[in-house]
Amino acid sequence: MTAFEKGTLNRVRVATRASYDQDTVFSILDQGLAAHVGFTDHDRPVVIPMIYGRIGERLYLHGAKAARFAKVLGGGVPICVTVTLIDGIVAGRSAFHSSMNYRSVVLHGTAALVTDPGEREAAMEAVTNHLMPGRWDEVRPTTAKELAATAIISFAIEEASAKARTGPPNDDKEDYDLPIWGGVVPLQTVYGAPEDDGALAPGTELPDSIRKILSG
Amino acid sequence: MTAFEKGTLNRVRVATRASYDQDTVFSILDQGLAAHVGFTDHDRPVVIPMIYGRIGERLYLHGAKAARFAKVLGGGVPICVTVTLIDGIVAGRSAFHSSMNYRSVVLHGTAALVTDPGEREAAMEAVTNHLMPGRWDEVRPTTAKELAATAIISFAIEEASAKARTGPPNDDKEDYDLPIWGGVVPLQTVYGAPEDDGALAPGTELPDSIRKILSG
Repeated sequence: MTAFEKGTLNRVRVATRASYDQDTVFSILDQGLAAHVGFTDHDRPVVIPMIYGRIGERLYLHGAKAARFAKVLGGGVPICVTVTLIDGIVAGRSAFHSSMNYRSVVLHGTAALVTDPGEREAAMEAVTNHLMPGRWDEVRPTTAKELAATAIISFAIEEASAKARTGPPNDDKEDYDLPIWGGVVPLQTVYGAPEDDGALAPGTELPDSIRKILSG
Repeated sequence: MTAFEKGTLNRVRVATRASYDQDTVFSILDQGLAAHVGFTDHDRPVVIPMIYGRIGERLYLHGAKAARFAKVLGGGVPICVTVTLIDGIVAGRSAFHSSMNYRSVVLHGTAALVTDPGEREAAMEAVTNHLMPGRWDEVRPTTAKELAATAIISFAIEEASAKARTGPPNDDKEDYDLPIWGGVVPLQTVYGAPEDDGALAPGTELPDSIRKILSG
């Protein structure tokens, strides 16, 4: 079991809910759809939702070269990326013991603009396949013009922690006698039936990438 | 239609995807379950998932007094809170035109510790009812000890913007001739059947708050 080192940034206060195990961190990252990317711009914190891809211990983000995130994060600044999966609402018998069940990872690193053409292409493939596994090989190849308009930001995961809450509420002992419901309402993110855009070339079928996400 | 002013922090680059309308911002906030809260700690950006509540133009967060967020945000520092609802995966015929459908809000403000007892209680009610409407009146009242252990952070929404992407991919004209599937795979967050904790007092029924979220 490989673990991320506990540092000043990633230490979780409630130890029973924390994990620094790489497999746990990567598993949550790989299940997430959007990351919340935090950085500092003109001395103010900024958090934006972004899609992402992972290659080993490195995370990749991409977007329009003209976007603020690219201008700021391309400059080699600290970045924090958080991915959260919500698993349920925890209804305790008191407000104090009500909560959510979730799994989250918080990553810290130093962002940099990726300039190497090979790494840029690998990153775009990782981001595309993160949402739809294998999609990169199904789509029309990326053009030089598209590549030129795309900024790729990457960082090595320097510190990481996973945090999770599972199970029923931990109510106060005496509250179990009260006629108040206690338990969990599970939450799940589910895919609906794919909706083609009504402009498919004749004979075009649903691709393997989408079949794969639908079959879970 | 009341709008948030466009400032230096909340201006969205792609104007067609942006809204500064209060109703739009509040509607996304009210549908979200977790917020991603960004602040700066020791010169590093930090993003943590938190539950929240809204009263008018003011957002409330709560947590253990001992937690880092309470110590940092209680000091009157800049805060950025982002809530994202993911509506679908957009499968374009190229990687470049693949994306997600989503609605998000980014809020900026200055965080402060709430100390007024009445406002603290109203905030806890708002946070509790945000996840389960009406739950505050169903649960065992909060004790003085619980109140003492809870930090409430609040900020007035100084700048806000909503951003959304909807609809099918916007593929390049010539790509529609390719035998590549284009469309959207919808995504939805759904509640499962409530699971009580097996320790209900005799005769305890599912409360209205949970019936309400289940009926949508």
